[in-house]
Amino acid sequence: MSLTLYWSRGSCALASHLLLEQVGAPYEAVRVDLAAGQQRSPEYLKLNPKGRVPALVTEHGILTETPAILQYVCQRFPEADMAPLGDPWALARFNSFNSYLCSTVHVAHAHRLRGTRWADDPVAIESMKRKVPQSVGDAFALIERELLAGPWVLGARKSACDFYLFTMSGWLESDGVDPKQFPRVLEHRDRLAADLVVAKVVAIENAKA
Amino acid sequence: MSLTLYWSRGSCALASHLLLEQVGAPYEAVRVDLAAGQQRSPEYLKLNPKGRVPALVTEHGILTETPAILQYVCQRFPEADMAPLGDPWALARFNSFNSYLCSTVHVAHAHRLRGTRWADDPVAIESMKRKVPQSVGDAFALIERELLAGPWVLGARKSACDFYLFTMSGWLESDGVDPKQFPRVLEHRDRLAADLVVAKVVAIENAKA
Repeated sequence: MSLTLYWSRGSCALASHLLLEQVGAPYEAVRVDLAAGQQRSPEYLKLNPKGRVPALVTEHGILTETPAILQYVCQRFPEADMAPLGDPWALARFNSFNSYLCSTVHVAHAHRLRGTRWADDPVAIESMKRKVPQSVGDAFALIERELLAGPWVLGARKSACDFYLFTMSGWLESDGVDPKQFPRVLEHRDRLAADLVVAKVVAIENAKA
Repeated sequence: MSLTLYWSRGSCALASHLLLEQVGAPYEAVRVDLAAGQQRSPEYLKLNPKGRVPALVTEHGILTETPAILQYVCQRFPEADMAPLGDPWALARFNSFNSYLCSTVHVAHAHRLRGTRWADDPVAIESMKRKVPQSVGDAFALIERELLAGPWVLGARKSACDFYLFTMSGWLESDGVDPKQFPRVLEHRDRLAADLVVAKVVAIENAKA
């Protein structure tokens, strides 16, 4: 059965979108217009009560949360070899990396435009925005120094982690972080941007009206 | 080889601690005193550059991030059957739940005492604290309504997800959320609190000076 990915432009759903394309999955990509509030429409909330993207619809039901989607797609298309499925320790590193991006990097980034999740006072919202360059920058300093084994996140093998990192490193400039501080991350981003699968999905996401 | 878990009282490391005990792993539990700043000591930062708990030391190296630790421990001790390892879809639900706790529930909670991660202004810190009952409450409303299949998180089978939920539902009162709003979560918490493995680990964590 075909899979359906709900995505929105500029969101972390790009990681799942890239992986589905990479593994050659039969899938449909449906854009959710966050600016228009489609994620809060009754139809979408019925599909995904979290009101977020990504959401992956499968024959078993809906799956949310990027780290879970990434491992699931890798398990479903094992021949694409995008996760170290046969090695529990390597898979643990895969999941540790993805969890860090999800719960620390993405959360730091979200304080720039989604501060109302965590405070109501406009002064607080502005204060949160001001700290984003530091909090995102600190997280990327750790990635640069400790987590990106090189040339790929997990070392010699390319994996879904690379698509997730590519997604988040694409936000650095808009988060007020100079990527030149992180030459290894920047080289990784440039290398992936030149990849044909990546370029195709990025073009699709940018082209949709 | 024995495993070593670095934990601190009242932290999310409890989930990993409970799981290690449940699966019968040979392990040592080492307390990190967050109030005393031990997580920022040079020794600890050398071990875990993130300066957080939990951290699991294995013969392969250190592993951080609760969702990754939980799946890894389940894979390492498969006979304990604490994750649906043989069913990719069920394992995806396992990871989706854990990722939600890590990136949404724990993050909402952290705005009560760890606001300086995301803002410097004392007014903002106070504003964040005021929203915790709502943001944590909203997340638990979703858990109550959608995510806790019952009687266990994944339905008929107990899993590591239950330990993680037990850890976070233990924070409700201190986060200013009345757990009686969530009778299914509360029943789940009470049932686990009466479990001998859980009671043992909770007693150990509370007893350490």
